[in-house]
Amino acid sequence: MPIPAAPLLPPFETVSWSPDGQSLRLLDQRRLPLEETYLDVRTLDELVRAIRSLAVRGAPAIGVAAAMGLAAVFAREAQSHATLSSERAPLDTPRARLAVLAAAIETARPTAVNLRWALQRMLACAARLGDDASPEQLVSVLREQATRIRDEDRAMCHAIGQFGAPLIEPGAQLLTHCNAGALAAAGIGTALAPMYVAHARGVTFRVFADETRPLLQGARLTSWELQRAGIDVTVMPDGAAASLMATGRISAVFVGADRIAANGDVANKIGTYALALAAREHGVPFHVCAPGSTFDANTQTGAGIEIEHRDREEIAFSGTTQVLPQHVAAYNPAFDITPRALITHYVTDRGLLEPPFTI
Amino acid sequence: MPIPAAPLLPPFETVSWSPDGQSLRLLDQRRLPLEETYLDVRTLDELVRAIRSLAVRGAPAIGVAAAMGLAAVFAREAQSHATLSSERAPLDTPRARLAVLAAAIETARPTAVNLRWALQRMLACAARLGDDASPEQLVSVLREQATRIRDEDRAMCHAIGQFGAPLIEPGAQLLTHCNAGALAAAGIGTALAPMYVAHARGVTFRVFADETRPLLQGARLTSWELQRAGIDVTVMPDGAAASLMATGRISAVFVGADRIAANGDVANKIGTYALALAAREHGVPFHVCAPGSTFDANTQTGAGIEIEHRDREEIAFSGTTQVLPQHVAAYNPAFDITPRALITHYVTDRGLLEPPFTI
Repeated sequence: MPIPAAPLLPPFETVSWSPDGQSLRLLDQRRLPLEETYLDVRTLDELVRAIRSLAVRGAPAIGVAAAMGLAAVFAREAQSHATLSSERAPLDTPRARLAVLAAAIETARPTAVNLRWALQRMLACAARLGDDASPEQLVSVLREQATRIRDEDRAMCHAIGQFGAPLIEPGAQLLTHCNAGALAAAGIGTALAPMYVAHARGVTFRVFADETRPLLQGARLTSWELQRAGIDVTVMPDGAAASLMATGRISAVFVGADRIAANGDVANKIGTYALALAAREHGVPFHVCAPGSTFDANTQTGAGIEIEHRDREEIAFSGTTQVLPQHVAAYNPAFDITPRALITHYVTDRGLLEPPFTI
Repeated sequence: MPIPAAPLLPPFETVSWSPDGQSLRLLDQRRLPLEETYLDVRTLDELVRAIRSLAVRGAPAIGVAAAMGLAAVFAREAQSHATLSSERAPLDTPRARLAVLAAAIETARPTAVNLRWALQRMLACAARLGDDASPEQLVSVLREQATRIRDEDRAMCHAIGQFGAPLIEPGAQLLTHCNAGALAAAGIGTALAPMYVAHARGVTFRVFADETRPLLQGARLTSWELQRAGIDVTVMPDGAAASLMATGRISAVFVGADRIAANGDVANKIGTYALALAAREHGVPFHVCAPGSTFDANTQTGAGIEIEHRDREEIAFSGTTQVLPQHVAAYNPAFDITPRALITHYVTDRGLLEPPFTI
């Protein structure tokens, strides 16, 4: 895809190269919202640990971090091998080592589709160099490809933002759920991208963010990044959204998507469906923002999307405080399905789409 | 009202007399769900602190605790005065002292209507004895009246349970929100009363309890008391209720009410309205359970009910962990309004009612 010269970026970098270009630099999301600290990743071990422990999260951000991390780790190993080859185990062939690294990184979040996709793309690009490629050639091509994956993600976010920004009127009060923002991508996110673009154009608006139980991504992450960008944000319990819409104070809802079926049904963070019902009841437009890669032509309807169920511990503890009695069960689905009929616009990097999608 | 000989009671006592009859005994709800411990209250200071710090909560339970606590504190002071009068300040007239105690107790939760109602009733009953009443006569009448207030509450809960139990079919899967159970009353509660009665009749069913952010009464209290009574209970995030109803697995919703307007609009814990919208969407009956005292003939519609907004701190912290950035605002209404059109049955201590109410 064509990459614009200068996509809009947030005032922080979720995934970047370190200043010397030798390491992957991550905004450490485990420390948010209390501290904005950055983590430089140089070894395979550090990379796997960072992804697994959620220092970086959000499907697009994980994909970009995996690609850039693979390039950084491979480059460092190749360099050590060149300078210290007598002391170290042989690198096998460089491409074989690359495959080993990629396989190890993939284990960090086995169900993250973007992670696998990005790593496959890196391996394919190395394969195109042929078996005679030198480590130096591989390092150069991998760095370039990882940077390209990051830049494409930034361009995708920017395009969603440009198509979605006209949906935000001056003085609007918007509602969002979970975190589908710049902290989940290399660029300005998906659901929050229209807000960043509108803000950059001088449109004034206010955002209400659901705290998003059980993991509180709205309280911890969405509020942090919007405040950091100078956008007015207020956090509320998930259960307060419906009555807030009933007061007539919400102009539009913007959410992301984890997967979109061919008929337009949307799988997104648990709680999205209840928002969509309340939005319809009160005539509030409900917009789903997602890149083309989220549309799954092979899944006909939402009924075909398998819902991940997560650990009881996420419900049993509030911070470090136990809030659930021993032996009481928890029901903790990660996603729900919002049917096509409740959705006003699908805001994508290719424009505002309608099902059936031809992506 | 007539009091049945033996109303159904839960297997624990939220508010009771201590075995020697001299103290108010409270199930200490600050320690739930981790420990079932009881607190004996003998002094004014202990009583005010227990109510203020939520050792006892829930409108009916607070009213009963205030009445029984007033009787216990007054009796203890009268006894000390009789045996130790030379060392203590004079009791003024016993009725004047009683009024001072009642005024002090009322400050513990100034907006709790049941608290004031119960204390007024205690003072009125003392007034009927006339100015010549001895401290011993007062102690006896106050103990009797406080016991009567408790017994009436138990009878009210039992009646709600009897009228509501037929709404629970064998094999039902029920959904509830917040805690309107035995921990909020002297008897078996309001929203949970039909469940206790059905359970006692041998009906088998399962309950899903919303955790109920921000204070997690569903996770901490409802799950504890249902499990304690041997009723199958599962806790979920508030945002999971709508998609659970979409699966067809919920037979009915039972909630309590804080106030019911003349047209039938219901003020209840934040999040109730979103449940009611999802219940209508999926054809799930939505029952509001409340005693006659909750119906407010002077408020025409829900629009006339003022909604309390609570502290930012309830949203900013999860347990002891700060989850909200500094300076990010929180929207934290305590209640929302569910319109009459979304409610299937009003389950009261006088039967299943329809608006306009003639209570």
